[in-house]
Amino acid sequence: MIDKVRVAVVGVGNNTSALVQGIAFYRETGSLVGLHRPEIDGLGVGDVDVVAAFALSAGKVGADLHEAIFAAPNNFPRVGSPLPSSGVTVQRGLTDVTEFDRVAGVLKGAEVVLYSAPSGRPEVARAYAEAALLAGAAFVNTTSDPVARDAALLRRFTDAGLPLIGDDLASQFGTSVLHRALLELLASRGITLTSSYQVNLGGTEDFRNLVEHPNTKHRSKLNALGSEQVAIAPLGYLPHLGSQKIAHLNVEAQGWAGTPVSLDVHLKVHDPSGAAGVNIDLVRLAALALRTGRGGHLPEATPMLKSPPGTAI
Amino acid sequence: MIDKVRVAVVGVGNNTSALVQGIAFYRETGSLVGLHRPEIDGLGVGDVDVVAAFALSAGKVGADLHEAIFAAPNNFPRVGSPLPSSGVTVQRGLTDVTEFDRVAGVLKGAEVVLYSAPSGRPEVARAYAEAALLAGAAFVNTTSDPVARDAALLRRFTDAGLPLIGDDLASQFGTSVLHRALLELLASRGITLTSSYQVNLGGTEDFRNLVEHPNTKHRSKLNALGSEQVAIAPLGYLPHLGSQKIAHLNVEAQGWAGTPVSLDVHLKVHDPSGAAGVNIDLVRLAALALRTGRGGHLPEATPMLKSPPGTAI
Amino acid sequence: MIDKVRVAVVGVGNNTSALVQGIAFYRETGSLVGLHRPEIDGLGVGDVDVVAAFALSAGKVGADLHEAIFAAPNNFPRVGSPLPSSGVTVQRGLTDVTEFDRVAGVLKGAEVVLYSAPSGRPEVARAYAEAALLAGAAFVNTTSDPVARDAALLRRFTDAGLPLIGDDLASQFGTSVLHRALLELLASRGITLTSSYQVNLGGTEDFRNLVEHPNTKHRSKLNALGSEQVAIAPLGYLPHLGSQKIAHLNVEAQGWAGTPVSLDVHLKVHDPSGAAGVNIDLVRLAALALRTGRGGHLPEATPMLKSPPGTAI
Amino acid sequence: MIDKVRVAVVGVGNNTSALVQGIAFYRETGSLVGLHRPEIDGLGVGDVDVVAAFALSAGKVGADLHEAIFAAPNNFPRVGSPLPSSGVTVQRGLTDVTEFDRVAGVLKGAEVVLYSAPSGRPEVARAYAEAALLAGAAFVNTTSDPVARDAALLRRFTDAGLPLIGDDLASQFGTSVLHRALLELLASRGITLTSSYQVNLGGTEDFRNLVEHPNTKHRSKLNALGSEQVAIAPLGYLPHLGSQKIAHLNVEAQGWAGTPVSLDVHLKVHDPSGAAGVNIDLVRLAALALRTGRGGHLPEATPMLKSPPGTAI
Repeated sequence: MIDKVRVAVVGVGNNTSALVQGIAFYRETGSLVGLHRPEIDGLGVGDVDVVAAFALSAGKVGADLHEAIFAAPNNFPRVGSPLPSSGVTVQRGLTDVTEFDRVAGVLKGAEVVLYSAPSGRPEVARAYAEAALLAGAAFVNTTSDPVARDAALLRRFTDAGLPLIGDDLASQFGTSVLHRALLELLASRGITLTSSYQVNLGGTEDFRNLVEHPNTKHRSKLNALGSEQVAIAPLGYLPHLGSQKIAHLNVEAQGWAGTPVSLDVHLKVHDPSGAAGVNIDLVRLAALALRTGRGGHLPEATPMLKSPPGTAI
Repeated sequence: MIDKVRVAVVGVGNNTSALVQGIAFYRETGSLVGLHRPEIDGLGVGDVDVVAAFALSAGKVGADLHEAIFAAPNNFPRVGSPLPSSGVTVQRGLTDVTEFDRVAGVLKGAEVVLYSAPSGRPEVARAYAEAALLAGAAFVNTTSDPVARDAALLRRFTDAGLPLIGDDLASQFGTSVLHRALLELLASRGITLTSSYQVNLGGTEDFRNLVEHPNTKHRSKLNALGSEQVAIAPLGYLPHLGSQKIAHLNVEAQGWAGTPVSLDVHLKVHDPSGAAGVNIDLVRLAALALRTGRGGHLPEATPMLKSPPGTAI
Repeated sequence: MIDKVRVAVVGVGNNTSALVQGIAFYRETGSLVGLHRPEIDGLGVGDVDVVAAFALSAGKVGADLHEAIFAAPNNFPRVGSPLPSSGVTVQRGLTDVTEFDRVAGVLKGAEVVLYSAPSGRPEVARAYAEAALLAGAAFVNTTSDPVARDAALLRRFTDAGLPLIGDDLASQFGTSVLHRALLELLASRGITLTSSYQVNLGGTEDFRNLVEHPNTKHRSKLNALGSEQVAIAPLGYLPHLGSQKIAHLNVEAQGWAGTPVSLDVHLKVHDPSGAAGVNIDLVRLAALALRTGRGGHLPEATPMLKSPPGTAI
Repeated sequence: MIDKVRVAVVGVGNNTSALVQGIAFYRETGSLVGLHRPEIDGLGVGDVDVVAAFALSAGKVGADLHEAIFAAPNNFPRVGSPLPSSGVTVQRGLTDVTEFDRVAGVLKGAEVVLYSAPSGRPEVARAYAEAALLAGAAFVNTTSDPVARDAALLRRFTDAGLPLIGDDLASQFGTSVLHRALLELLASRGITLTSSYQVNLGGTEDFRNLVEHPNTKHRSKLNALGSEQVAIAPLGYLPHLGSQKIAHLNVEAQGWAGTPVSLDVHLKVHDPSGAAGVNIDLVRLAALALRTGRGGHLPEATPMLKSPPGTAI
């Protein structure tokens, strides 16, 4: 029987709530619904154990992980599987360089550090990567902050035989995936794009951050679609939506003899589910590589990343 | 300079209107908009000449082709390129076996017979195929009537070195293409389909026929998507839509931990454009094969067909 | 304290399920959510008691009403309020004229007979009206079968001092209400209607009947919107929708200087809720009139009916 | 025969383009399509003459009005009616207090001054109102800048027997009108609102201004709907839309027994048409009042204004 993957999560937001609840859901139900890869080289979804967690807010630090995932401002819904005490107490994350040793010490027991904090603090992201390096753990950066794109840091992970995966998740299924697929479909059929837009509405802290500080992630999204005729137009923070995201996509195009082709799409999806559905794969890929001594960038992770090494920072 | 492809069209409905107007549009503008394959082995879109045409209705027979394509009940819009007299007078099509020789005689001058009459009269489709065989022309069956799926007939075309392409067009871009792409996209990301439906509304004679006699083509469509969870629900004939088709697609699915994914799509497209955009390719493939002595089924045409040889009749 | 309204329901389908569950919901929660009129002349929603029920199918007859409302093919969802045994055993309805006396006997204890069986059997509807007349109860016909539009029958109810309300419910909120409101809004602003369509999809037995026998109710709907430019196009039976109805509405119009105005609406609603929300008012109006000796047609019910007396049969 | 209304327009943007082209369209075609009020007390749409026009940009000043309305950044489409030279040369508007007399002199020939410049410069709006007062003309303020809400100014117009109409147009048909009508419809049927949002996308300079300086007009919009559960969420500037506005509206609500009611609306409309369709009425009301000596606020104009006198500034 395969050893379970021991994961330390940094950040106890909606994405961590979705990950933790989903693992419990799949263990309880045995269902395979919504799973991209039920098993990777013998590792099932239920073979992932969260063994440590870091957060910063008062409502989460000191609480059991299974309670902290429901603390405000988290709003990912309760999936419904029983969540008895996890035995993992959420610890205070890094706020000061003097705490580095404490954090690195906690990471000692983990094979994979899943960095799932809010984007926008690259120095914090890199400090956790340093701690993982010190602790001998693989590191997965799900934020748009450049970590795996830092060539020097990547080399040190490679040299240490430790996987470094990042940067920025490509959601299992979300607006970007859908939009790109539609544009590719049209192109593959010879339909000529005229214009396209995308409107995203959501109610998470992530959305609030994007609306208030649109730069980094927004640019990352534009990279992902990369067409001059495509407008990634406005982001709206609507608290009542909770963790549900609503997207309105429009594509105007021309077919044979220039006749119009028009496509309007209305998508509803839970963003944290899209993240968890990819994180569960990245964590398993990282553990498998670690166990076989493969360090640095993992090519098999590239399709699940928005900004892998080599992408412009 | 390459010889132009000489095509005889059977049926002067909307699809023929779109084909004839589109060829004029691309010749006049030099545009490549909406073209899947601007050139196939040296044959451009403008290298196709319609040299004969058959119809049955009083308003079309005897008229110049460039007038007949606008006769009722045709309602494909005017694309706008100048259409001076074509020099091709629409001839009366087959209504009686005694006229077979007359029709075959007309086909003598053509390399490709494009059969674009309404579906639902398989014996008529096969009679034209016989006439093409007699005249030494390739045959393209765009209807859902079984012609290329008739093994005996296919063998005779093969033996005669004459291409036989069919049955039933896969539109360049339409509801089926889009619906299938969306379902495949979800499956490829590990999202589990719960239910899906498709509603098609249109204003052409083809739609009126589908609504009044839903069987043959409808079944062909269900084949194309082939999932028990997908309902190809009702077809509506709304004359005011003209040749524009409107489709409402819905997909309900489940992602990570069973959380809901919901997709609603509203598509507007001109069906005859979708047909013409594929016919222009099939005709060129047929001519190229004919010129090099390749008869029977053409594998390169398979992706553009809904029911190629081997599909159940 | 006001006496509760004693209602006998004919038909234990989705509409009756919604009515019975809703009364329990409002009694339990004290909520006023979704109520058009919380109180009518002192009668609250919780003041309505179902004291007898008739059905025909083996799975319902003989069962307690609170079980029968969940028997197939009913598919209105469980609202969630506790439903202990009701003490009302569902009785076999009229299938034969010889049973008329038995049925009329049961109705003796009721003030109002709510006729909520499937449309399309006018002679059955009228037989229950006769039984109500004999039993001295008011009669509410929620089907499109002509009962209140039968002038002779209406006169007999009037003469007997018994209210007769019908025919055909105008839903509390549904496609017709919304469509008419949109068309009236455009007209009131001087926007000129060009075309409009409506597509309805549902998963109830009512929908199955409409799809298979579209005539009666369909005509009633067209009456309700009554414009030549409005197409009430196809009805689709999609079992997976359950009691949820999905409607796609489109309105194309012209504003100032003929510039286009386009409106697409996607509505999701539970049809049985729309029926129950009106039935609860009709039943109370009927009881109040009965108690004050007002018989025949009740003008105050007219806005809630699609085909009140005077409408063409 | 009634005397034509002589109007001076301040601002030669899209709204003026729509007004001028629409008058030409209705004169040429005799059509009544899209007209709220074809005639007001004998004044038809074609009875309005633009006799003077002010603008600021180099591309408009000095040009004939019928050319200036198509100068960038205007992007209201060509309606298609012939527009021979108007004989009205666009004059330079007020940029400096020293030009006040020149402007007032031009206004001398006009009965109505239609102030249709961009919102956000209240002092300019009031200067034109002063000029109208001096010239003895009625004043219509279509911007959200407070002019008619200025009690002292209103009194001076009243005393002078000159109509003062404002502030801020309620479009003939647009997102606010539709959204409010839907919310009122639900409320009138007893459906309980849960949440609602509105997303507006457009490609005019007006939209660019709203996106870059969202304050004034946005607040005016919120006033207009005024519900805590309604989010007027993000505005997007998409140049490719031109003068077409696209709105996505969502309404989530609860019906009988708390069952969900969901409404998604997709609206396409030309904003300048909505403005012109109201301006043509305001101008005629102003002229009629002026001719009968009625000054100050005109109650009959109130329904066409977002912020009439008495509304908070």
